[in-house]
Amino acid sequence: MNVSNVFSGIQKQMPEEIIETIVQSHQIKIERIISRSHSTSEGEWYDQGRNEWVLILKGNAGLLFEGNDQTVIMKTGDYLNIPAHRKHRVEWTCPEGETIWLAVHY
Amino acid sequence: MNVSNVFSGIQKQMPEEIIETIVQSHQIKIERIISRSHSTSEGEWYDQGRNEWVLILKGNAGLLFEGNDQTVIMKTGDYLNIPAHRKHRVEWTCPEGETIWLAVHY
Repeated sequence: MNVSNVFSGIQKQMPEEIIETIVQSHQIKIERIISRSHSTSEGEWYDQGRNEWVLILKGNAGLLFEGNDQTVIMKTGDYLNIPAHRKHRVEWTCPEGETIWLAVHY
Repeated sequence: MNVSNVFSGIQKQMPEEIIETIVQSHQIKIERIISRSHSTSEGEWYDQGRNEWVLILKGNAGLLFEGNDQTVIMKTGDYLNIPAHRKHRVEWTCPEGETIWLAVHY
């Protein structure tokens, strides 16, 4: 049985956000996403074919959902379910240290 | 968009381990499991029809897999994939404070 750790193996240099697949099956994909002050490009939205459950393992972030005025602020331990095709974008992630997300696409 | 927190809403009195469903769909079930020094009853094994991915959000635990001599020790941030029908049991969880697991059944 191989044990890995969600807080380990984080690169020091990260010009881009890093997305790693932890589990992949027909039904689901579990990812670790590491952001260091990254955000979704200006004017862009995620529009995903599957539901996504996200949990912040470390750090914090601001998510904006289309049609909403207010950014949803997420901190360590916070989770949220994003239904398929609910357009959203990451407005900001913590400027200091990394923000580590767990995402379950289903 | 409803934000919840995996570290919130934990009862002070916990005679039994607490299992809460966070997400339930046809394909998956995501659970938060809170243990306070609980373990699987003597001589019992989990034998599950689906795969289970587990992550320790807080605390630590010892897992034993059938046919193995050694307990797998898991600490905060550690994760493990348990294939369907791979028999296992929780030998121990942290005697102080709670151990919080995230489990994705798929």
